[in-house]
Amino acid sequence: MATTPSMPAAPRCAFASDNAAGAHPAILQAVVDANAGHALAYGDDAHTRECEARFRDLFGADVTTRLTFNGTGSNIVALGSMLGSLPGPHHAVVCTDWAHIHADETGAPERALGTKLIDLPSPDAKLTPERLRELSHLQGVQHHVQPGVVSLTQATELGTLYTPSEIAALCDTAHSMGMLVHLDGARIANATAALGGTPAALRSFTIDAGVDVVSFGGTKNGMVGAEAVVFLNAGTAVGSEYTRKQVTQLPSKMRFLAAQFNAALHDELWISLAAHANAMATELHRLTASITGVELGDKPQVNSLFPRLDPAMIEPLRDWCFFWDWDPTIGQVRWMTSWDTSPDDVQAFADGVATLARERSEPI
Amino acid sequence: MATTPSMPAAPRCAFASDNAAGAHPAILQAVVDANAGHALAYGDDAHTRECEARFRDLFGADVTTRLTFNGTGSNIVALGSMLGSLPGPHHAVVCTDWAHIHADETGAPERALGTKLIDLPSPDAKLTPERLRELSHLQGVQHHVQPGVVSLTQATELGTLYTPSEIAALCDTAHSMGMLVHLDGARIANATAALGGTPAALRSFTIDAGVDVVSFGGTKNGMVGAEAVVFLNAGTAVGSEYTRKQVTQLPSKMRFLAAQFNAALHDELWISLAAHANAMATELHRLTASITGVELGDKPQVNSLFPRLDPAMIEPLRDWCFFWDWDPTIGQVRWMTSWDTSPDDVQAFADGVATLARERSEPI
Amino acid sequence: MATTPSMPAAPRCAFASDNAAGAHPAILQAVVDANAGHALAYGDDAHTRECEARFRDLFGADVTTRLTFNGTGSNIVALGSMLGSLPGPHHAVVCTDWAHIHADETGAPERALGTKLIDLPSPDAKLTPERLRELSHLQGVQHHVQPGVVSLTQATELGTLYTPSEIAALCDTAHSMGMLVHLDGARIANATAALGGTPAALRSFTIDAGVDVVSFGGTKNGMVGAEAVVFLNAGTAVGSEYTRKQVTQLPSKMRFLAAQFNAALHDELWISLAAHANAMATELHRLTASITGVELGDKPQVNSLFPRLDPAMIEPLRDWCFFWDWDPTIGQVRWMTSWDTSPDDVQAFADGVATLARERSEPI
Amino acid sequence: MATTPSMPAAPRCAFASDNAAGAHPAILQAVVDANAGHALAYGDDAHTRECEARFRDLFGADVTTRLTFNGTGSNIVALGSMLGSLPGPHHAVVCTDWAHIHADETGAPERALGTKLIDLPSPDAKLTPERLRELSHLQGVQHHVQPGVVSLTQATELGTLYTPSEIAALCDTAHSMGMLVHLDGARIANATAALGGTPAALRSFTIDAGVDVVSFGGTKNGMVGAEAVVFLNAGTAVGSEYTRKQVTQLPSKMRFLAAQFNAALHDELWISLAAHANAMATELHRLTASITGVELGDKPQVNSLFPRLDPAMIEPLRDWCFFWDWDPTIGQVRWMTSWDTSPDDVQAFADGVATLARERSEPI
Repeated sequence: MATTPSMPAAPRCAFASDNAAGAHPAILQAVVDANAGHALAYGDDAHTRECEARFRDLFGADVTTRLTFNGTGSNIVALGSMLGSLPGPHHAVVCTDWAHIHADETGAPERALGTKLIDLPSPDAKLTPERLRELSHLQGVQHHVQPGVVSLTQATELGTLYTPSEIAALCDTAHSMGMLVHLDGARIANATAALGGTPAALRSFTIDAGVDVVSFGGTKNGMVGAEAVVFLNAGTAVGSEYTRKQVTQLPSKMRFLAAQFNAALHDELWISLAAHANAMATELHRLTASITGVELGDKPQVNSLFPRLDPAMIEPLRDWCFFWDWDPTIGQVRWMTSWDTSPDDVQAFADGVATLARERSEPI
Repeated sequence: MATTPSMPAAPRCAFASDNAAGAHPAILQAVVDANAGHALAYGDDAHTRECEARFRDLFGADVTTRLTFNGTGSNIVALGSMLGSLPGPHHAVVCTDWAHIHADETGAPERALGTKLIDLPSPDAKLTPERLRELSHLQGVQHHVQPGVVSLTQATELGTLYTPSEIAALCDTAHSMGMLVHLDGARIANATAALGGTPAALRSFTIDAGVDVVSFGGTKNGMVGAEAVVFLNAGTAVGSEYTRKQVTQLPSKMRFLAAQFNAALHDELWISLAAHANAMATELHRLTASITGVELGDKPQVNSLFPRLDPAMIEPLRDWCFFWDWDPTIGQVRWMTSWDTSPDDVQAFADGVATLARERSEPI
Repeated sequence: MATTPSMPAAPRCAFASDNAAGAHPAILQAVVDANAGHALAYGDDAHTRECEARFRDLFGADVTTRLTFNGTGSNIVALGSMLGSLPGPHHAVVCTDWAHIHADETGAPERALGTKLIDLPSPDAKLTPERLRELSHLQGVQHHVQPGVVSLTQATELGTLYTPSEIAALCDTAHSMGMLVHLDGARIANATAALGGTPAALRSFTIDAGVDVVSFGGTKNGMVGAEAVVFLNAGTAVGSEYTRKQVTQLPSKMRFLAAQFNAALHDELWISLAAHANAMATELHRLTASITGVELGDKPQVNSLFPRLDPAMIEPLRDWCFFWDWDPTIGQVRWMTSWDTSPDDVQAFADGVATLARERSEPI
Repeated sequence: MATTPSMPAAPRCAFASDNAAGAHPAILQAVVDANAGHALAYGDDAHTRECEARFRDLFGADVTTRLTFNGTGSNIVALGSMLGSLPGPHHAVVCTDWAHIHADETGAPERALGTKLIDLPSPDAKLTPERLRELSHLQGVQHHVQPGVVSLTQATELGTLYTPSEIAALCDTAHSMGMLVHLDGARIANATAALGGTPAALRSFTIDAGVDVVSFGGTKNGMVGAEAVVFLNAGTAVGSEYTRKQVTQLPSKMRFLAAQFNAALHDELWISLAAHANAMATELHRLTASITGVELGDKPQVNSLFPRLDPAMIEPLRDWCFFWDWDPTIGQVRWMTSWDTSPDDVQAFADGVATLARERSEPI
């Protein structure tokens, strides 16, 4: 459908996804700067050693860090090492039915690890200790996979957040049932920004809460492409270097990934980029919440909105400035901001929504 | 090709394989007797409990026994539990290039366990401590699978035997390198019979030698169909009940498998059946070793001969009394005896070989 | 808890499961009779050839039959071959959340095949074409596993039945979406008995309805232990002999499994055994439906009842005559009849239930 | 050990590996240039579309290209799709015992694909049609994995090359046996440069020779990090987008990988970089071949030398300028050149070798 002629100029950046954004200049420059002479491959280089030290500083502990290429890879390295630390091949991974590992990774855990996922329905993409405890009926029965790892996502796939105490309670319950806790932090920066915006805030919902392993996302937060698996529980890291290679996630010229994290972790750039993305989503919420034909819930916790739109608005709006459907059966879409979304982009987009909404509501 | 008319009457039992033989009457009767009323499935029955006790008695230790359907299944349950007791999914299984798990199980370990096999060439189907030590160059290098389990076969696929001290030395080396030791005992009864013919003989090359887990064969030794995985090392048994179910080897009406072992383990029937099979192979060797056109090596250690025959003899002999090729490129075949091979069968077969050899060597 | 003293004599056979029953005498006798002399292993024997012919006769088509040890194995061989006939390793198996492959096989499909299961919630353990069609949003999106096989269970894990036309509609929908259809027939005999009690009835909901592959159960219906994978769609059978071996389900002395099916398929014994079990469940329903403290639904379709009991009755009743819990949170249990349940057993059990119910309801 | 004081200045670039080199400036600049505004993730961007078109032009056919992160990932995507195009899960991959997929990928194929590798011993890391034909004894026997894919490496792990006609003969044999052919081209650029240095040369040993799928390497040839799986046989590409995601190799911000290939494929930069690396190896051979204590074979075919050194020279030389051991038991090392090795580096290194050799040979 052609764009409605009366629409204002489209925003410079669309609201499709934070991985549609490019790299922050300082991070890209770090890649360029890392291209000096030779450096041994596979992590035996100064950039990687610096990166490992930076993660130890960040978490304030002797954590083990394995860099990987992408989020799915990061999750598989994390889960593979965690399951490998439990006896037998019969443990399952517990998650919500919204979990990226369950819904959006084309069955990677089942393929690469042979593990079953136990997906628990959750309207807000969060787990609770009660739901975990209900799994106790599986324990000790040879006909059932045994719950071995709980995988939480923070921020969740629905843009919700666990409080640090909620994660601590989940970790307590999981550990008391003999399970380990993985945190899929593809958007851990947005969560950190929302929960205090400091390394201490990060630690409050990870290492201090009892999380065993974190998939620490970078790509969606202004990197060219890099993720880190951070093993907070030393026992789960044993053999993780082999697991990473075995599941195809060992980077050859690793300095180029490490350099990205080194730039991002410098001066807490990673937090400020995410804080900006979060703020832009809040601003977008403020500017569009009262528009007729736009049904928005509460103020966003991180960098995504899931509005329900007047169905007639969706295609013209998308043609003008791209975004993805979320649940087409109810007219729900996703608007996502990123580190490079500008206030002008937000204003321009809100203006477009308002323009379209006005036209829709006018008599023909 | 038609059988040569002048051949004597063929033996009642051919020399194809010990799994072409049926079940011993006492073992079959035990199956019949077990069919009394209801018994809970999946091992929660009196026959299975008796069987587990019998294996504890046999090995003189608090071993854990898991009954399975067949040899491949037994090996997969054993290897799956053993690998599962090591950290990570990156350990490999070391074996010879003759190993059944490598050559004759259609890639079952790779499929069911995702593990790599490291097959070491071996002319006699035996491993040595030296060969194991050569694998140390793989250890600690992230680009290589890490040797995790050594799988020995006793008696080997070539009918050879390890002495107890050879197995003890292999176990010492393997353990010193951080590996566990599996013994594929599809023909463990023949090995036991050959090495002393007593439970003490069995123990000398298994639990006393340091073996961690045994696949204890039954089917080839007069059973209808049953195998047992016996975990001598308690740490490797953790979770093995789940592993067995997961790899499809949990028998439903388990009493019918347990009853077979209970009959076989009663009064050392299992040893006497194997001793008989071994003796028949020795007798066949004695009667055929000097026949022109038959090239036999040393006296067999267990129940198989691997003669090289005058190529012109092979098809007529096979048509008359079936056996399998071993290495067709050199005219090598396999003659195998079983618990029910009779001295008359052996004599008849030797007569046939001799008849055919005479005809071949006569001028036309 | 001790049995209440006033209880009548317990039934000879409990109501735990049809796999707690033994083997029918004719089937056991067939095993005994098959123990005559030597027969080549792995299916190259006369009993297996007869069995394959019997299945061709039963389905009235040139179907391919692969015998296996147990139900999980049967399902894995079926699903492995079906998935293997589709391009790529990225197809998933669709089933209900009650499906045995999902809930009761310890993650075997994920482990052995690396496939994901898409489990759809279903209160009656049945799928519908509508539910299948909802999966079309996954199709063509690289981030999602692609639905490749639909697995139905007939009779279902809840004792419900699909009509032939329901299965035909599911097959039509599945095929139109590019999916294949598997039927888990662990209790296919009970379904056949309930839907007409003839081979034609069997064909009406399998080959005539468009099902591609059937796991044809035997063990729960009076066998010692044997299942059959019957490939009705020739394309799905390609390579299934290798798949069977690879997933550890190739029986060595296959004649002993084939003989069981040959006896069961003779004179439709398999149908009459299941019809009897079904009738016993109906009778048990009739005798207990009006007892106070027993909440039963409609007349059973096959051989299981899922009553909700006065919680105080459960343990005394179970102590007296064993059965399994179904949903302890609501006091639901399962009573299951089998080929050897007698009218006297049913009467005795109903008497016991009534006795206990009376005592519970009397004032103390 | 300290460097011998009399050594000349060390080369600017060591001879460790071509993946110790950085990125070519034009390729790095392309990454920087690609960082303009938003672009949809996962390949739905202009850079990726250009890249796909460039590969179609390069191979002169409607090939399907899937970009991946690294060589192991590229091989797994290729093999996974190829195996997925064959019926059943029971096919194996045939390769030499030097093959990277066998020796240096930590068991990735077995883990991610559940497939067995059949590794054939080969002194020169090359396969022959004769060796393939010997595998025919496995075909059609249910106890053996079935050879499904042949994986060749060009240039090989030993720096040797197949001629186009050798590859054509292998493809003919493989196809006649029902197998597909994969070419691991981690160093396909070096092979192309050595075999003519034109796109036609590339085509002569790939698409024209009958190869089905190519892992087209980039990282070792001056890229930051990018590889491409190029499906020359359309049937093998079906579903490859899902397979890529499932095995964790779908890049998020794919434009940054595509841009690298677009720069490399522009004006045949990829060939000239590899030609330079090859020439530097030849020059290093020329300058060191006659040095006492250095045992070199024939002139190198691509960019690696495998000299045997006087053992006393190895550590001092390595301390001065790093390189890797190859076979320490015979004093063999590997010297590898890269796109950025300069004639001065080669001369400096040769001077160092000569200096050290002289000192070793002088009387103390």
